[in-house]
Amino acid sequence: MIEVEIKARAPISALADELSRRGAGFEKTVVQSDTYYNAPHRDFAVTDEAVRLREQDGKAYLTYKGKKLDAKSKTRKEVEVGVSDRAKMEDILLSLGFRKTLDVVKTRGIYHYKGVEICLDRIEGLGEFVELESMADNAAEIPQKRDELIALMHELGVEGGQIRESYLEMLLAKKFG
Amino acid sequence: MIEVEIKARAPISALADELSRRGAGFEKTVVQSDTYYNAPHRDFAVTDEAVRLREQDGKAYLTYKGKKLDAKSKTRKEVEVGVSDRAKMEDILLSLGFRKTLDVVKTRGIYHYKGVEICLDRIEGLGEFVELESMADNAAEIPQKRDELIALMHELGVEGGQIRESYLEMLLAKKFG
Repeated sequence: MIEVEIKARAPISALADELSRRGAGFEKTVVQSDTYYNAPHRDFAVTDEAVRLREQDGKAYLTYKGKKLDAKSKTRKEVEVGVSDRAKMEDILLSLGFRKTLDVVKTRGIYHYKGVEICLDRIEGLGEFVELESMADNAAEIPQKRDELIALMHELGVEGGQIRESYLEMLLAKKFG
Repeated sequence: MIEVEIKARAPISALADELSRRGAGFEKTVVQSDTYYNAPHRDFAVTDEAVRLREQDGKAYLTYKGKKLDAKSKTRKEVEVGVSDRAKMEDILLSLGFRKTLDVVKTRGIYHYKGVEICLDRIEGLGEFVELESMADNAAEIPQKRDELIALMHELGVEGGQIRESYLEMLLAKKFG
């Protein structure tokens, strides 16, 4: 299974109303406090990888993201593991020579509609976005799944163009670009 | 607090009898299945660091060990964090370019005697050892603590000379040396 995602700027409170009107399922709202790290031996800005420590609901997670597999969507390898202590995991990363890049604080409302996970995101310092996610069985299925997501985004009245950059890349561009 | 450790070869079943005769407290026996990794950007055999994934009692732990701080004992920085999935943590390490070095499988009996933790270790492929551990409040206290451990080791009748190498280093020397 491969995750297929698309993303655009959108006014999330209007979108929440629209989803509610259509009877979409509301799952929950979560606050994700993320810190991204760069590696000592290769520049993730060049290799398009990421290492992230996330805190959510009092639990911590370490995530590795590989480079994007598909030029049109945001598909990539992703491995996540729960860790017992965020500060100790950060100590290990820094001891190994990894460096903090940036913090990303996200408030995410999660909905389900027509088999798609819809996330309404507010990112501190960036603004409001909608992300649509579904799963492809294999690489050949990715283009079709992506087209379905784009059609659903239009159906919901989202007018912003597709954004391929991650929130991290957008925050880095704002800070250093 | 700084961990102070000394280690020597010793016949562990005779030593277990001796500890029992003296009324030492027996805590438990654990089996630790460890895998060590080397880094892509510096050679841990040179920098004297270690990254280890440990499985014990069905739980997994990631550990970073810094270089030794003291020439006479095995004192070093050590940070350990529990991880929810050993295979996924290994996937993250390998994706980042870390490489497996060696497996170390240890059966350890843990005793407490005169304020010291005494470990009777059987290491697959290496043999039998005793490790004595206590805690120093600061670096200045390390020599005294070490001398106390050496005295206790003699008192228990251990005749083998002190070993400063880790089990990992000894296994590597046996395999490649």
